[in-house]
Amino acid sequence: MLGEIIAQHRQRAVLMHCLTNYVTANDCANLLLASGASAIMADDPGEVTEVTAICDGLILNMGTPHPRKLEAMLLAGQAANRLGHPVLLDPVGVGCSALRREAAGRLLAQVRLAAIRANASELATLAQGTPAHRGVDTDIPAPGVGGDGRQITEKTIQSARALARMTGAVVIVTGPTDLVTDGTTTYLAFNGHPMMRTVTGTGCQLSALAGAYITANPERRLEAALAAVCAMGLCGEIAHAALAPQEGNATYRNRIIDAIYHLSPEELEKGARYEAYP
Amino acid sequence: MLGEIIAQHRQRAVLMHCLTNYVTANDCANLLLASGASAIMADDPGEVTEVTAICDGLILNMGTPHPRKLEAMLLAGQAANRLGHPVLLDPVGVGCSALRREAAGRLLAQVRLAAIRANASELATLAQGTPAHRGVDTDIPAPGVGGDGRQITEKTIQSARALARMTGAVVIVTGPTDLVTDGTTTYLAFNGHPMMRTVTGTGCQLSALAGAYITANPERRLEAALAAVCAMGLCGEIAHAALAPQEGNATYRNRIIDAIYHLSPEELEKGARYEAYP
Amino acid sequence: MLGEIIAQHRQRAVLMHCLTNYVTANDCANLLLASGASAIMADDPGEVTEVTAICDGLILNMGTPHPRKLEAMLLAGQAANRLGHPVLLDPVGVGCSALRREAAGRLLAQVRLAAIRANASELATLAQGTPAHRGVDTDIPAPGVGGDGRQITEKTIQSARALARMTGAVVIVTGPTDLVTDGTTTYLAFNGHPMMRTVTGTGCQLSALAGAYITANPERRLEAALAAVCAMGLCGEIAHAALAPQEGNATYRNRIIDAIYHLSPEELEKGARYEAYP
Repeated sequence: MLGEIIAQHRQRAVLMHCLTNYVTANDCANLLLASGASAIMADDPGEVTEVTAICDGLILNMGTPHPRKLEAMLLAGQAANRLGHPVLLDPVGVGCSALRREAAGRLLAQVRLAAIRANASELATLAQGTPAHRGVDTDIPAPGVGGDGRQITEKTIQSARALARMTGAVVIVTGPTDLVTDGTTTYLAFNGHPMMRTVTGTGCQLSALAGAYITANPERRLEAALAAVCAMGLCGEIAHAALAPQEGNATYRNRIIDAIYHLSPEELEKGARYEAYP
Repeated sequence: MLGEIIAQHRQRAVLMHCLTNYVTANDCANLLLASGASAIMADDPGEVTEVTAICDGLILNMGTPHPRKLEAMLLAGQAANRLGHPVLLDPVGVGCSALRREAAGRLLAQVRLAAIRANASELATLAQGTPAHRGVDTDIPAPGVGGDGRQITEKTIQSARALARMTGAVVIVTGPTDLVTDGTTTYLAFNGHPMMRTVTGTGCQLSALAGAYITANPERRLEAALAAVCAMGLCGEIAHAALAPQEGNATYRNRIIDAIYHLSPEELEKGARYEAYP
Repeated sequence: MLGEIIAQHRQRAVLMHCLTNYVTANDCANLLLASGASAIMADDPGEVTEVTAICDGLILNMGTPHPRKLEAMLLAGQAANRLGHPVLLDPVGVGCSALRREAAGRLLAQVRLAAIRANASELATLAQGTPAHRGVDTDIPAPGVGGDGRQITEKTIQSARALARMTGAVVIVTGPTDLVTDGTTTYLAFNGHPMMRTVTGTGCQLSALAGAYITANPERRLEAALAAVCAMGLCGEIAHAALAPQEGNATYRNRIIDAIYHLSPEELEKGARYEAYP
């Protein structure tokens, strides 16, 4: 199943419009190129509508925000909606400031999202104020966690499902165990390596990849998101196995992108570790 | 001939003022350092005139534009003209939006350019509206393409020559076959590797390098531009030959810059592949 | 002594708020992660006060400045002062423009700095106008320079001491020989490799590291700054020793960060080369 996603992705070679942060923009561009897609970064309100129109899909990454870029995200998102282009939102650090919370609220209200990629903390901020979240204060490990004991909480799973149902977006939550849900069907995914946390922007890169996979496979959004989560985690594993003793996180960063460059449909089929969550 | 260009470049160690995009700024800075030059990135209208004054040459790269930066490009360009510093324009994605087209038009009208570096599509946008371009709709391969069948069209060659004559700039057009022209003398260049397209910013890096070579060799602008095109392509070849099987575009990115770091005048003389175009 | 600094740094895993330039932001983030700290980059006046509040320390790096970011630096610095968070200022290129000089002047006047990291030229600009600097025009090598003949001038040492006394900050001056002073006690440090100058942003990275070490060791600011200077230089040496013949500055960049990733307290104790300056 997942192999077909990346086979179609490589064939379609989608062009992604990225409004993103300046810390990880270069890595996101190289990751997209590694995957077989390509990217245009443009974030001024004066041109984003036109740039969106010549691309196939849209990534809205909220890192290093400022008011003009947030305004541009709204314009680009609405243009993408008119054109039928998939839009992925990565609410980077949305809990950090009112500026980010309000911008995320506006985007959720005014842009139809194909996907949202967040960590558990960002998800909790997005979910605040939604009925599904109120009163859910238990934060116990869910059944069905990976055999290696990596955990995700029941609260996170329920919040993700509720957000997916409310928005119509596929919701991706990353952490020691990853989750992908469309509100009805939910997968837990177990690829990845703890050292990925020592590389800045692996989350941003996953968001870019998921947005591109979904853009190339719009009829199978849930599977495309799951493929991206497993591909990124699997490449984290492959890259870690290739590290020499004196190599650290900078070389690891390169090797992860290199692994995406070489990842074949067969490798993904064989290496992806996930299960349906009841 | 080309070896002397980089010999003089290494000796003069020019300082380049770069107004550039945030996606590839780091790679451009490291590429310039690899070559023996150095860079200051500064793009606010409130300081660019002063920064230009302490540098030797100027790069105007239109990626990730916004109105303040475009205004700063005009100020910096005019300051460089007053000081006699070479100015290179890279009209990144100029066809993407009216914002970029209008900015490029203003820069072409109000700044005297030493060089322009574009791909064929960007060149076509720049050339639109110039008399030389109107009615030139044939887009057939030109004679004189490389022995490996890589092509450039007659239309592109004529547009480049016309732009060079109109602006007084040396025009560099990159693609499977590269072109350098001052409107009178034209060279086709054949170095490079297709995998360079999988690294974001190799075009930006070439622009930075060409601007620096020209700044260090102002009396030989055409040869300096040709040296930069051949050096970048040759280093793409050297870097590709050094790749291990599991290495991909991220490691390739590093190896290209590493190759520029080690490139000697003799290596460039020996490895450059180009020919005069009648 | 220095080993304890990084041992405590690794244990405390501080979160640094960085207002920084877009050229080296990615490297600074990965360097901080390599060291055991982490980073949030955020530079809009609309959110920096909140972001500072959830972090442990603050880095103000003046590269690629614009008025909104400079305003944000003031807000973030004052918020950090209220919270008792250490603030490090890196006045990148402060001599380049009035915009930077005035911004640095405002920050020096209105923010209590824990540390300042500059090169000799930036220090001279900061020191201009302070009584200690006037009339100090001799620029002779100081006694006590490293056995390998690398130099720092008496004028630089006196300016650094004066700035430290005036501001209460630990002052770090980097160059062929590095200096760390609190105005009373002064160390000269001799680690490093000349090839570090061919990697953009090693100064920015050192500033980030010094800010993080100080944040994790607030009761030993001078020693923490010295540890950062020696660690960065030592990792430049380790990384250089690991370079293969065809590798250049791009690979070197990665290997320096990799070396920080692996640097142990014992290695730093053993490899640090410094001496008290009378």
